Amino acid sequence: MALVLDPTAQDLLFREARTANSFTDEPVTEEQVQAIYDLVKYGPTAYNQSPLRVTLLRSPEARERLVAHMAGPNQPKTRTAPLTAILSAETDFHERLPELFPQVPQLKDAVFGDPSARESAGTFNAALQAGYFIVGIRAAGLAAGPMTGFDAAGLNKEFFADSGQRALMVVNIGKPGPDAYRPRNPRLAFEDAVTTL
Amino acid sequence: MALVLDPTAQDLLFREARTANSFTDEPVTEEQVQAIYDLVKYGPTAYNQSPLRVTLLRSPEARERLVAHMAGPNQPKTRTAPLTAILSAETDFHERLPELFPQVPQLKDAVFGDPSARESAGTFNAALQAGYFIVGIRAAGLAAGPMTGFDAAGLNKEFFADSGQRALMVVNIGKPGPDAYRPRNPRLAFEDAVTTL
Repeated sequence: MALVLDPTAQDLLFREARTANSFTDEPVTEEQVQAIYDLVKYGPTAYNQSPLRVTLLRSPEARERLVAHMAGPNQPKTRTAPLTAILSAETDFHERLPELFPQVPQLKDAVFGDPSARESAGTFNAALQAGYFIVGIRAAGLAAGPMTGFDAAGLNKEFFADSGQRALMVVNIGKPGPDAYRPRNPRLAFEDAVTTL
Repeated sequence: MALVLDPTAQDLLFREARTANSFTDEPVTEEQVQAIYDLVKYGPTAYNQSPLRVTLLRSPEARERLVAHMAGPNQPKTRTAPLTAILSAETDFHERLPELFPQVPQLKDAVFGDPSARESAGTFNAALQAGYFIVGIRAAGLAAGPMTGFDAAGLNKEFFADSGQRALMVVNIGKPGPDAYRPRNPRLAFEDAVTTL
C-alpha cells in the first residue's frame, strides 16, 4: 500500500470521479460551497498569496450574463446546472498580503508592486487552487464540470471590469444526471510523464 | 456534514497537511511516486491534454544541477530533501492529443498548431495538475515543499533545452523533519473569497 489515503477516498476524489456534462435538479447549498471552500483554502500557494476568487451564479439574470460568453456546446449545460461558478485569479492579491503573509511586509510593494509579476504569480497560484477546488467539489460528493471554453475577454468585461479579477475557468457543480459521463479517455503512462535523472 | 470525504482524509490532504521546510532521511521510493502519479493522473484537464511532466532528481549530480538555479533560501532544503521533483508543462502536449482525446483528431493541428495557444493552455492545465500532484503527495502520507523561487530561464536551459517543457514548480518530497513547519498563516474568509450573484 504505497498510499495512506483510504481507497474509498481515492475513488471519490480521483479514480471514480468524472467530469459531468449533465446534472440532476438537486440544489447545491451555500453550506456545501462553504464546506468546500473551508477545506481547500488550506492548499498551499506561494507566499500564501491565495489569489483564487469564486463567483457563484445563483440568480437567473447572472447566469444568463455568463451563458452569453460561453462557447456554443458549453451553453446548454451551463444554463441548466444547479450551480455554476467562475473561478478567477485576483491579480491585485498583493493588497491582502500584509495579512496573509505578515512575516515579510515588504512583499506587497517590493515584489508584487509590479503588475506583470502579480499577473503571472496570481494566474499560476489561482490555477493551483482551482485544482484544489475541483478536488473539494468531489469531496462534497458532487460532480464538477470544469470548462475553459469561453470568451475570456468578454467574461472579464462583463463581471470584472472594476476589479483585478481574471477568469480562469467556469465550473458547473451538482449531482450527475443520467447521461452525465462520456467514456474515460486514456491517461499518459507513468513512463511517459515521469523522468528520473 | 456538508462533506462526504471522511474527516481523517480531510486532515491528511488539507487541514493538517502543511508545507515542509525540512525532511528526515527516509527515502521516497519509486513505488510511492508511481502510486501518486497513478492516482492524480485522473484529475481533469481541458481536452484531457495532460501537459504535466515530472522530473525526479535522484542522482547527486542532477540534484546539484538543479540547486544552482534555486533561490538562495531554497538551496539548502533542495539539497537535503530525500526527493526533489521539477513539475513542468509540456508545451508540445499536442503531439499526444490524438491518443489522449481521440474524439476530435483535428484538435492537434486546428486548435493547438498555434504555439501560443499551446503555451497558454499547457501552462494553465499543468498548474491544475500540479495542484492535484501536491494533493497526491499528501495522499501518500508524505509532506510536500513546493517552491517557485528559482531562475526559470536557467533551469529550463539546463534541463529542457531540447524539449518543449517549461518548469512551473520545484517540489521537495519526504517525511517532515523535526522543525519542518512554520506557523500556519491565515486564509481568506469565505466572504472575502466567494461572491454570490
